[in-house]
Amino acid sequence: MDRPDDLSRIRIVLSKPSHPGNIGGAARAMKTMGFGDLALVKPRYFPDPDATAMAAGAADVLAAASVHESLEAALGDCVLAVGFSARERDLSHPAKSLRESAREILDAALAGPVALVFGNETSGLSNDEMSRCQRLVAIPANSAYASLNLAAAVQVACYELATSAGAHATAAGGSGTVATGGDLAALFAHLESAVTASGYLDAKRPGRFMERMRRLFARTSLEREEVKLLRGMLAAFEKRMRRD
Amino acid sequence: MDRPDDLSRIRIVLSKPSHPGNIGGAARAMKTMGFGDLALVKPRYFPDPDATAMAAGAADVLAAASVHESLEAALGDCVLAVGFSARERDLSHPAKSLRESAREILDAALAGPVALVFGNETSGLSNDEMSRCQRLVAIPANSAYASLNLAAAVQVACYELATSAGAHATAAGGSGTVATGGDLAALFAHLESAVTASGYLDAKRPGRFMERMRRLFARTSLEREEVKLLRGMLAAFEKRMRRD
Repeated sequence: MDRPDDLSRIRIVLSKPSHPGNIGGAARAMKTMGFGDLALVKPRYFPDPDATAMAAGAADVLAAASVHESLEAALGDCVLAVGFSARERDLSHPAKSLRESAREILDAALAGPVALVFGNETSGLSNDEMSRCQRLVAIPANSAYASLNLAAAVQVACYELATSAGAHATAAGGSGTVATGGDLAALFAHLESAVTASGYLDAKRPGRFMERMRRLFARTSLEREEVKLLRGMLAAFEKRMRRD
Repeated sequence: MDRPDDLSRIRIVLSKPSHPGNIGGAARAMKTMGFGDLALVKPRYFPDPDATAMAAGAADVLAAASVHESLEAALGDCVLAVGFSARERDLSHPAKSLRESAREILDAALAGPVALVFGNETSGLSNDEMSRCQRLVAIPANSAYASLNLAAAVQVACYELATSAGAHATAAGGSGTVATGGDLAALFAHLESAVTASGYLDAKRPGRFMERMRRLFARTSLEREEVKLLRGMLAAFEKRMRRD
């Protein structure tokens, strides 16, 4: 049930990594989740025996890694670059959480390569590096100690994206096609009109209901089939409300 | 906005870890996500300088770790033990995905300590170890290479649980109280009755609609406030359908 194609356009970019072991660990993390495109910007040591050792069974990802002189070069062909941090306060402008961003990242990858950019182990992303990213994403973490190991941050990012894409569905998990941005826009328009017809939502004073619903469904990565079921249900409510 | 109390009853149990570096890496992974209860069953080397080095700023978690002669002893006071694997086929009986299990794990932790059990780096969980767990959870992974590093698996598990609990909400993320099992049961009963009243669901031939809805909302970890909004919407539909 793996669908590696969904993830093949997502590139992990490590900018100025200091420790080669982390490069290997990131390669392993990527491969376990079905990712294969690794780009390194000015790695301090690479290739390196520590990278090879930590990559374990992901030597192929390491061997295929591209090495670049600048972040700009690593992002050259990307339609979207997303900068990562574990701490929102480290970011220069507002960040979304990883889970909330997963849908947008996967949608963008339908159009072309998408880069997930991770900064140096000690200093994180510099302001200059952040300025080359169109989105910033925070991995929600303990505010008292948010220092994820670099390979661990890559593991979490790849896990979240693969899970949101339903790429490696277990028997009990969802295995359908992920709904597109268009499917979701149609669902929200339908929901808003049905809820307005019910009287629950006052078109003149809508409050935050729709915003809350968008946020709720942004966390769950709806499948197309689920969007169909939800819209079928809304249509049934609308029909029955109009009956008289 | 951190709510460490929600996570304080979740214990990470490493059974027979071979590499002390992984013990340290697991401690660091735990702390970044707000967990602090680490239990080690027959570690090959512990304490060990490699564990200390890899723990980085999580020396306190390492220092507080309990060491046990048997898995049974490590699970003594637990109300639930959950065995982890990256591959469903490695498990002796059907596993749920990590995301689907998050809600149940968090609910159980309201009643008492819950153990997340990780096996040895090379051999994983033995059948005997699995038999001491009441639930088995698979971290969905690439079927061609599902070998997550031990600390990386702990990082993913802690990330998923912390995120599902809304423990470290970013500004844009959910920050409300997570709905309980009772809230969800009431929501699903309400949904079923409204959808049956609409005619969309045939009480005699319900098909898989409710199952699909349960699966959808199991992935998203609803907040109490969201359950309230959804039920308010359902009540408005019901009222308008009954109007005549």
